[in-house]
Order: sequence, then structure tokens, then C-alpha cells
Amino acid sequence: MTDEYFMQLALNEAALAFEEDEIPIGAVVVQNNSILARGRNMTEKLTDTTAHAEIIALTSAFSEIGAKYLPEATLYVTVEPCVMCSGALYWSKIKRVVWGASDPKNGYTRIQPAISPFHPKTEITTGIMADECAALMKAFFKGKR
Amino acid sequence: MTDEYFMQLALNEAALAFEEDEIPIGAVVVQNNSILARGRNMTEKLTDTTAHAEIIALTSAFSEIGAKYLPEATLYVTVEPCVMCSGALYWSKIKRVVWGASDPKNGYTRIQPAISPFHPKTEITTGIMADECAALMKAFFKGKR
Repeated sequence: MTDEYFMQLALNEAALAFEEDEIPIGAVVVQNNSILARGRNMTEKLTDTTAHAEIIALTSAFSEIGAKYLPEATLYVTVEPCVMCSGALYWSKIKRVVWGASDPKNGYTRIQPAISPFHPKTEITTGIMADECAALMKAFFKGKR
Repeated sequence: MTDEYFMQLALNEAALAFEEDEIPIGAVVVQNNSILARGRNMTEKLTDTTAHAEIIALTSAFSEIGAKYLPEATLYVTVEPCVMCSGALYWSKIKRVVWGASDPKNGYTRIQPAISPFHPKTEITTGIMADECAALMKAFFKGKR
């Protein structure tokens, strides 16, 4: 299965967040070509600004496999992870992180780190279905203005 | 009440973590001179590498006040926050962050950010009871060797 296939599943999570009036970001954690966990932004629903799609998906994945590291898993997320989520992914020792749209304003790049926040063993892939992922964000914020 | 008073309460949380064979880091969230939330590192107990003292304390504080921002609160933590926790504190818009021991290896400074990860409105105070906070960490890792 392709990166686009799994990114579409992350986009489905983002679309659910949109319907719930949450900033539409979705994530899935995949291992051996099957879904280990899903997450979508729930900061409004949980009244918790740490309830990002990636954190929810990671915590669910740890619970699913009963381990605190994910060296065989890939996390797909529709938008570039923020500083918090990049740091969470570091601790997870995840094999791969794939995101769609870049996010210079809120993504981890906003603090211009000299050293990548991700784990040295983590492979990074960006730009998968970037237009679709960004379009959902634009539609959401357009509706807020 | 002084910063040392509240840092001692964070140290008490760290000591509980130590007893539970967790890396001994503790945190408290304070508002109007009273404790809003407590947290201690629970990564082993919860099998979740995102279960840091600060994240647990923040999530508990949001729940306690029923709001997703903490502009009137101070978080005390025994050790310099990591990248993940600095990013979580950013989202919380917390008034003040106070830590004890610095942590160049695992703290947020490990990625050498050009821009502070904390919210521009957040006041930072460091070095409160640094020796006591560091001593607990050293005793823990000495016991692991």
C-alpha cells in the first residue's frame, strides 16, 4: 500500500475533526501495512490544547501494542507536526513520520531548530497529498473569518 | 509564598516518581497561590513516552479550571522541559514556567532553537532549587548503572 493510501485515511480523520468544528488535522499510525491507531485534533472537545491528532494517535498506538516505543511504525499526519508533537514523536522512536502540508506558522520549524527535533533513526517524508491537506485547513479558517 | 515553596511540592512529586521507579521529575501548576494540578513522570506506569510530569499536570489543570488556556497560572517543574513539553506549554499560554535543574541532553535546548519554543507572553525562571532537583536525578541514574 502507498503513502497516499494511508494519508487518505489521515485525511478522513481530519475531515471528522472539521465536522466537529476542530482545526482539521488527522493522523494514523501504521505498522505492517495495517492501522495501529487513529487520532484527530480534539483540543476543543477535550478543552485541552495538548490534544493534537499526533498525541492522541501515539498514545493509542502505545496502548494497542503495549510498548512505549514504535520502532516499526509510521505516523501519517495531514499537517507538519508542531514543536510539541515533534518532541513526542522523538520520544516514541518511531520508524517514519510522513506529513502532507507544511505549516511554517505553527509547525516545528517555527522555532528554527539547529538540530532536528525528530529521533535520528526516524525517517521523514513530506508533501504527500499536500494540496488536499492544506485545502481542508484553508476551508476551515475561511469559515472562521 | 515563594518559588522555593512550590518547587518543593514539585520535588515531592518527583520523589513519588522515584519510588515508582520512574525517572524522578515532578511538576505542579499553581494559580492564586494554590495548587491547581500535580503531575509526575509516568512513562513506565502508563507505557507511554508522552506521559511526562508537565503534560500530566497541564492536562489536569485544563480539566480543573475547564479552560484550554492558563494565562494566570505558573508551572513548576524540577527539570528543564523537553521539546515536547516546551511545545505543550506554548499552547497552554501559561503565565510563567519555573524549573530547577537544567538538562542539556534531554531538555528543549538540545535542538538549539533560534526562537524560544515558549509563548512570547510566558515568563521563564530557572535554577530554583537546582541542586536538589539534579541530585534526585543523579541518584536515580546511579542506581540504574
